[in-house]
Amino acid sequence: MDKQVLWDVNKEFLTINEWHEYIENCLENPEDSKAICNINADDDREFDAIFFGGGAGGRFGSAYMRAMGGRQLIVDRWPFLGGSCPHNACVPHHLFSEVAAELMLARTFSDQYWFPNMDGVVTNIKEIVDLFRRGRNGPHGIMNFQSKEQLRLEFILNTPARLIDNHTVEAAGQRFKAKNIIYGPGASPYSLNIPGADLHGVYDYETLVEELDYEPGNTVIVVGGGKTAVEYGCFFQATGRRTIFVVRSKILKLIRDGETHGYLVDRMKEVGCEIWEGSEVTEIEDDGEGNVGRVLIKTPEGEEIVDTDFVFMGMGENPRSQHAVDVLGVKARNDGAIIVNDKLQTSVPNVYAIGDVIGGPMEMFKARKSGVYASRHIMGEDISYTPKDFPDFMHTHYEVSWLGMSEEEAREKYGKVTIIKMPPENDDGLDVALPASDRMMMYAFAVPRMSGFQKLIIASESRKVVGAWHVGCGAKDAFQFLNVMVKKGLTIDELGFFDELFLNPTHFIQLSRLRAGLKQLEDL
Amino acid sequence: MDKQVLWDVNKEFLTINEWHEYIENCLENPEDSKAICNINADDDREFDAIFFGGGAGGRFGSAYMRAMGGRQLIVDRWPFLGGSCPHNACVPHHLFSEVAAELMLARTFSDQYWFPNMDGVVTNIKEIVDLFRRGRNGPHGIMNFQSKEQLRLEFILNTPARLIDNHTVEAAGQRFKAKNIIYGPGASPYSLNIPGADLHGVYDYETLVEELDYEPGNTVIVVGGGKTAVEYGCFFQATGRRTIFVVRSKILKLIRDGETHGYLVDRMKEVGCEIWEGSEVTEIEDDGEGNVGRVLIKTPEGEEIVDTDFVFMGMGENPRSQHAVDVLGVKARNDGAIIVNDKLQTSVPNVYAIGDVIGGPMEMFKARKSGVYASRHIMGEDISYTPKDFPDFMHTHYEVSWLGMSEEEAREKYGKVTIIKMPPENDDGLDVALPASDRMMMYAFAVPRMSGFQKLIIASESRKVVGAWHVGCGAKDAFQFLNVMVKKGLTIDELGFFDELFLNPTHFIQLSRLRAGLKQLEDL
Repeated sequence: MDKQVLWDVNKEFLTINEWHEYIENCLENPEDSKAICNINADDDREFDAIFFGGGAGGRFGSAYMRAMGGRQLIVDRWPFLGGSCPHNACVPHHLFSEVAAELMLARTFSDQYWFPNMDGVVTNIKEIVDLFRRGRNGPHGIMNFQSKEQLRLEFILNTPARLIDNHTVEAAGQRFKAKNIIYGPGASPYSLNIPGADLHGVYDYETLVEELDYEPGNTVIVVGGGKTAVEYGCFFQATGRRTIFVVRSKILKLIRDGETHGYLVDRMKEVGCEIWEGSEVTEIEDDGEGNVGRVLIKTPEGEEIVDTDFVFMGMGENPRSQHAVDVLGVKARNDGAIIVNDKLQTSVPNVYAIGDVIGGPMEMFKARKSGVYASRHIMGEDISYTPKDFPDFMHTHYEVSWLGMSEEEAREKYGKVTIIKMPPENDDGLDVALPASDRMMMYAFAVPRMSGFQKLIIASESRKVVGAWHVGCGAKDAFQFLNVMVKKGLTIDELGFFDELFLNPTHFIQLSRLRAGLKQLEDL
Repeated sequence: MDKQVLWDVNKEFLTINEWHEYIENCLENPEDSKAICNINADDDREFDAIFFGGGAGGRFGSAYMRAMGGRQLIVDRWPFLGGSCPHNACVPHHLFSEVAAELMLARTFSDQYWFPNMDGVVTNIKEIVDLFRRGRNGPHGIMNFQSKEQLRLEFILNTPARLIDNHTVEAAGQRFKAKNIIYGPGASPYSLNIPGADLHGVYDYETLVEELDYEPGNTVIVVGGGKTAVEYGCFFQATGRRTIFVVRSKILKLIRDGETHGYLVDRMKEVGCEIWEGSEVTEIEDDGEGNVGRVLIKTPEGEEIVDTDFVFMGMGENPRSQHAVDVLGVKARNDGAIIVNDKLQTSVPNVYAIGDVIGGPMEMFKARKSGVYASRHIMGEDISYTPKDFPDFMHTHYEVSWLGMSEEEAREKYGKVTIIKMPPENDDGLDVALPASDRMMMYAFAVPRMSGFQKLIIASESRKVVGAWHVGCGAKDAFQFLNVMVKKGLTIDELGFFDELFLNPTHFIQLSRLRAGLKQLEDL
């Protein structure tokens, strides 16, 4: 709803918790709330850019432009800055993945130590969704506070905006002009076009958080086999529900290292996930009252029918490009992604696009950096942005991090590679008590095969690290920095002489040191 | 007990789990077990070095020497390689710290979600110690397998050894000669010389694991305020026991950043730790049957008497230098640490010393690297080893990581510093819902002040990162790599352009990016 009534917040000061409460009110009573306007009337400079969308890309691009001395304006439909990540996308899934990890621990040690008896216990999904829903306005409050008081951004929030032309945006009944438009409205969940997809009981990552209004029954159908499907599906499974992943081709194709992939899929199966590959949901049937009643699934062995009241669609995202295509005529690919060059410029002069709307990788670092790079270009810097060779991560019940090549890719490219891994290659396989580290210690001492898997891949000739894979916990942050070093040509010899903080979740430093003395590298 | 009966394992092959079982038998029946001898009779080269002690330093030094083409021999009293770390020092404490973190979570969410009602519940200490004791031979098995089959080390285990002169060691009734001796027998827990310190019920990190034979009552006295005291003490506290830290001066002095120190101590108090600073245990009284009955404590307010059956001594370690001082006459400092130069050479020709026996930092990286550097020197490399500017970590109920300077030290040195922290400086203090990340997500959404604290310190003029402090989980591994970059002069501008894996436990990349555009840096 377009809001013509403005609350001019420019001369006001709100604490983080005041913002928190105000945002909560806006979201609970959207009809009654006003557009939030933070425009500095004393600044008569033209805007260098209007950011259409105040998510990760818009907010970081704005901060950088402002820091460089430029003037920007963000327009966003939500009453907060930060976009979908903290509202219904990456942050909630982290909470759900945390719960999955805790529940796997509680089930593994059921009725031992202080853990309750989890036998046959199905825990609440809605309660955890509600925990998130109640708490999410806290981070929103921080970002509004930070954006206004610390970063001094100008913005109009809590009202839809409309593109008018390549210099003009309309919001809250006013038109705003700028030298440039930076378009970054994000992406929305992809939905399957099959009968019954609109029934009550079919959710995606967005509607799960926004609309879940009942406690699902004991069977869950998850459609998809990539990040979103597995992250949410493992949470559902951990609550004690029968969880079937219906995957068109193969689950977790993004885990390109075969051994790491095998470890992950085996553990998913071990805790009870059902993985139906080469399969498709063809229809979702009504229970007679508008709710999901059962699901028809085409499998390689024929059609299966599963009774359930809960289907989760986890199949990726569509860029929200249509508005810019319609109004400005920016060019987009068939998948909806707006086409940009390495300056983030679209096909229309003075119109940039950033974040998920320009397609994959739909990752936080890309949203943020693309916003910053667009700003730098507008402010006169000579930049070239092409996100490549980045590290990545996801959750099953575990945290999984990776960078660079898989073992298979490295063998293909380099011929001779050296593998350093934990557990080591040995006749007892995974049934040995390492790796051990953060959050994996109880497994290491009681159910060793559950304590994780990790692998470092070295091109033997050059002695350079070319890939790293980690299943466990506590390695994700390290992979950010390790990746920078790997891109600069880090060798096993250099790595082996860093100072480890032992027990370190990766074990890479000390394992490298055990081999670094060798002229002809050997596996470990 | 000196073992004259040898089991020659050189031509045998044992799997990891066969080693595991064999080690278990040796430890359970020390009288019946044989010395384990892995010497290659076909190799007629003289040993380049005998490592007296096969702990972290001896094993890593041996591996490096062997990799460089040298011949080494390890002698160790235990039936496994790897030393005290996996047996009764750093690994058990990681398990206990893990349990502390899980129990803090369970108590915070007592009777909510799937957590049991923890009100007044005291959980078992001995059960967790036993979990460790049962499981520890698994990692031992891996290290014996790795050392023999993968690293091809020669060793004599499971029998005490004796120095004879600076080329000779006696073990299992035989004398072995080498060009050099590398002395690395480690350190042992420091014990307080007060009446009652030898009563049943007084433990240190070593005896806790080796000897605990009853379930302690509901009050624990922890003597000390450094790493060991706090790590074990927080575990005891988390089990639900009244836990009093008796600290001669101030608790956690090693946390040099004031704000980080404050966060940690406040949280310890919040969950119920009692911290008695400026205090000393003066006597431990007998209960009449040889057990601890009560403890007399001198406090600034006068003497206190506390009834308890359990005292934990957590006051650091003494280098085990005496044997080398007595036999070889190596020079040692007053605190017992053997004096070495930057080649790890002692005052006696051809005698090197490595690891904890040369004093602080008594950290894993130093033990391992000093062993490797001694080997490199012996093998003819020109080296200089001085452990400095290393990152560090410890646990309370939280994981705490740090590198470089505190804010106070940086202000002293640079005058102008820029602080980037989370939660940000704001009127609501810690009562705001960030940071959020690994293992802290449930707190972030329900009890924000418990979700951690982090801080990056930048010298404003040079824009270089000069310190980093993190309380939470999942940052330790990253600090290893970040520290290398900081030592090379990493700036906020470079850091801000790395690719973050969001939600990243440190938040440092994206927070830096929010400020990196500014010519004159500002806090965040």
